[in-house]
Amino acid sequence: MASKVLKILPLGGLGEIGKNMMAIEYGENILIIDTGIMFPENDMLGIDYIIPDFGHLLAKREKVRGIVVTHGHEDHTGAIRHVIEEFPVPIYATPLTRGLLEVKLRRGGMLNDVDIKTVNAGEKIQIGPFDVEFFHVSHSIPDGVGLGITTPAGLIVHSGDFKFDHTPVDGWPTDFAKLAEYGGRGVLALMSDSTNADKPGWTPSEAVIDPAFDEAFRGAEKRILIGSFASLISRMAQVAKATQKHNRVMAFVGTTMIENVRIARKLGYLDIPDDIIVPPDQALQMKPSKIVLMCTGTQGEPSSILGRLSTGSNRQFGVQAGDTVILSSHPIPGNEEMVHRTINRLFQQGAEVIYESIAPVHVSGHASQEEMKMMLQLVKPKHFIPIHGELRHLKQHAAIAREIGIHPDNIAVVENGTVIEFKDGKMKVGERVPGGYVFVDGMGVGDIGPSVMREREALARDGFVVIHLCLDRKSGTLTKAPEIISKGFVFIRDSEEMFELVQSKIQEIVKNSHGEDLNTRIEKDLSKFFYAETKRRPMILMITS
Amino acid sequence: MASKVLKILPLGGLGEIGKNMMAIEYGENILIIDTGIMFPENDMLGIDYIIPDFGHLLAKREKVRGIVVTHGHEDHTGAIRHVIEEFPVPIYATPLTRGLLEVKLRRGGMLNDVDIKTVNAGEKIQIGPFDVEFFHVSHSIPDGVGLGITTPAGLIVHSGDFKFDHTPVDGWPTDFAKLAEYGGRGVLALMSDSTNADKPGWTPSEAVIDPAFDEAFRGAEKRILIGSFASLISRMAQVAKATQKHNRVMAFVGTTMIENVRIARKLGYLDIPDDIIVPPDQALQMKPSKIVLMCTGTQGEPSSILGRLSTGSNRQFGVQAGDTVILSSHPIPGNEEMVHRTINRLFQQGAEVIYESIAPVHVSGHASQEEMKMMLQLVKPKHFIPIHGELRHLKQHAAIAREIGIHPDNIAVVENGTVIEFKDGKMKVGERVPGGYVFVDGMGVGDIGPSVMREREALARDGFVVIHLCLDRKSGTLTKAPEIISKGFVFIRDSEEMFELVQSKIQEIVKNSHGEDLNTRIEKDLSKFFYAETKRRPMILMITS
Repeated sequence: MASKVLKILPLGGLGEIGKNMMAIEYGENILIIDTGIMFPENDMLGIDYIIPDFGHLLAKREKVRGIVVTHGHEDHTGAIRHVIEEFPVPIYATPLTRGLLEVKLRRGGMLNDVDIKTVNAGEKIQIGPFDVEFFHVSHSIPDGVGLGITTPAGLIVHSGDFKFDHTPVDGWPTDFAKLAEYGGRGVLALMSDSTNADKPGWTPSEAVIDPAFDEAFRGAEKRILIGSFASLISRMAQVAKATQKHNRVMAFVGTTMIENVRIARKLGYLDIPDDIIVPPDQALQMKPSKIVLMCTGTQGEPSSILGRLSTGSNRQFGVQAGDTVILSSHPIPGNEEMVHRTINRLFQQGAEVIYESIAPVHVSGHASQEEMKMMLQLVKPKHFIPIHGELRHLKQHAAIAREIGIHPDNIAVVENGTVIEFKDGKMKVGERVPGGYVFVDGMGVGDIGPSVMREREALARDGFVVIHLCLDRKSGTLTKAPEIISKGFVFIRDSEEMFELVQSKIQEIVKNSHGEDLNTRIEKDLSKFFYAETKRRPMILMITS
Repeated sequence: MASKVLKILPLGGLGEIGKNMMAIEYGENILIIDTGIMFPENDMLGIDYIIPDFGHLLAKREKVRGIVVTHGHEDHTGAIRHVIEEFPVPIYATPLTRGLLEVKLRRGGMLNDVDIKTVNAGEKIQIGPFDVEFFHVSHSIPDGVGLGITTPAGLIVHSGDFKFDHTPVDGWPTDFAKLAEYGGRGVLALMSDSTNADKPGWTPSEAVIDPAFDEAFRGAEKRILIGSFASLISRMAQVAKATQKHNRVMAFVGTTMIENVRIARKLGYLDIPDDIIVPPDQALQMKPSKIVLMCTGTQGEPSSILGRLSTGSNRQFGVQAGDTVILSSHPIPGNEEMVHRTINRLFQQGAEVIYESIAPVHVSGHASQEEMKMMLQLVKPKHFIPIHGELRHLKQHAAIAREIGIHPDNIAVVENGTVIEFKDGKMKVGERVPGGYVFVDGMGVGDIGPSVMREREALARDGFVVIHLCLDRKSGTLTKAPEIISKGFVFIRDSEEMFELVQSKIQEIVKNSHGEDLNTRIEKDLSKFFYAETKRRPMILMITS
């Protein structure tokens, strides 16, 4: 009997490959790894978020056996609702990841329809022909795992999002022994996190944040506000430690953060003594020098708590002169401008702002080059597939693997939607299927495509003008002056003169035309006229009655 | 007689303070320093560029005596046309800066109306009561200067954009002796470049780029494409050096780059032997391993040469597999996403892409913290005003000045439009005047304000729907079915059902209303309906005939 082909298919994400979703297929069986979302880039106008395009899997629906989620971050969990709707199969996750998934599913009213199974790091499960072993990796959220997947074609190792932190906040480093054991066993292919492939050296331990917090807390005379991600559980533990040391109490502000803290404490992943946590209302009544407020909004989102604080529009409380604001975060690519604007505005409000480039109040959760090399040396894979990064990071990670001694022919740098095949121990880059991303805008999933996006771009750039002509049917003459409505094009009050000219221009065109192509002629002439007058090209729409 | 007040007024720019323009006023005299533009941020939809709001100076028009331009970068020269239109006074600049200003003015058809005077570094000029001495500073463009301005109130030192490069490409380091001489003479106030105030250490010399180029050239088997700024004259010299060493020839691509090279060579600021420069057409006929093409587009602008190359839409030539593309640049804040996308696409096209985070093919032109300290120690100012940076950089630069021993009361961190006053040797923060920025969109200067911007934002997010009702005047009934036009809201072809519902909804409203507030009711009901159906809020416009 001919041996079957093992196929790996990275899906979704914007630039990042295989980060948000991946499918592993063998015979009549598909295993899905991760179900994440991405946030839209600056020119994806009006889009709320982006999910992987898993359309290719729909035709193979009955083959899908299970979904494994490696950790609780949005870019690995956020699309669970969309995926589970199409593939109602069991979800496998570690306790904290499960807890965070449940928060998400409960909000979507889907919790009762879903079969989630808890798997602890170190445990193995059988999903179809796949023997999936969860091994612990340290990352910026606790309880993250990588996967050792024993398939009939060989052992595949998936790193998850990882770093090699020897002094992690939860005291639980990456399972080096397991990686070495895989290396000894013989690994057909390693898929490994490429996020920081252009960062030389070793990513600092989360432990470096403690002294930075300590110094910031020591210097703070009034309130301390700490901005972070709602899922950055280990950071909450670090803030709690500093809070306790400096005799303050802390309050969490914002629904998701409060909910995540509740789950993480309940499950034992976040150890904060009851007596240092107070509700925000109560904290705000206390002496400023006694409190710490922890909230979200580190990406400069105008509607977030930090965003509102920076513009002085937060209802519950405002920034006071002398407050210390610590941004314990890194801007997601594309958000730099908004983040810096928020920092400048917080300074304007009189706060002392401490952020990454001033003090080490944040470190990356991803491996740098030396850790990538270590991963490759431990696992000693025959084939290497860099994942979790933009193409430029994958290329760089591939260069690192070549340095380590992996043969260039055994390294596959592919984009989302490209199938990688293994047969008889050999790797081959296979067919390209649709595997990009799908826009979610409000309730619409995938309905916004290039044409609507182009309209939004045109409207964003130059606005539009609607021309309403009332024509006498028989004579073809205007029964009243054309009505003109314009938005986003010019400041109407300063443009009366121009619009009067438009009126007379239209009247002239109507007079000289004999009905034929009237609208087209007006559109064309006005388009030229507006460009000559303003060097702008508003969308022009004709309505005739 | 009471002593007069010396006033310093930083103007314009987005976040950056005093970078694009500054006014120094004493009695009946105003001196303008720099006339730059800024590029719009991602949420400034449709805006071409931004100029300083110098409206406050218009009322004092007759006081303006001259304009000094410190160096030839866009953010210091780009608004010259707008400024000179209002203040037709002499412009003072060094030879290269003058040459680059002339290119700009010639293009605007204004060269003949302008009085530009050449001043060499080391020379002094008298402008009203201001004795302005130009001193050389090294920066990422040759012939940059700082200013020592002797005023009746005391000596003011303005650093310009500077770094302390001991091995600059043009062999001309910052004039340390002059700075020390000012320090000995006694400086009332130093205004100094804060761009890199959050960068520890010392900015690397431009010289570090040579070995990086050398290595990249050595590894390149086919064509080498180098992206840079059109004004980065020293980088062109470095590329020429590597080109010559590796027995290639080079071509400049793009009008502005070609023009700037011509000026810089003519004035003696760029020393490239004739025989290594060829026209692009000729270069493209040669063996790929023999050529270097230098072009613009390092900011990911889709219409630039690199932008077009990355999407395979450049007419003259395309990227070929094996080409080496070097991005000798740094993303301007806010452009990171576009730059990274361009890099990923160039990789997709089969190029090897070398950029800042992979190899030191670019260094900053601005001083880092240790250089800032050195500047402060040399000049020993009584007062310190950090400039050229966002508020967060100014705050950081102020902290550095305090470390050096400058008394906090003698440091003024202000925003654009805040007057700083000196009287009897004392500094005071004065009134706040309009001093922000003005949008330029096509031919419109300042006509796009918050209201048009809000319209563009709404249109960009959710598009619009126009409803055209034809009503019988007497009966108030519809004479035909309502016409509906929508753009940027939904994909029309997939939304027929919804729009049929809209039709019947409108007909019902018209039937049940008795003429009163018909439009308002339709708008309100449809707004609710659209939100319920799509979770989007398109702009709704009613037209009735």
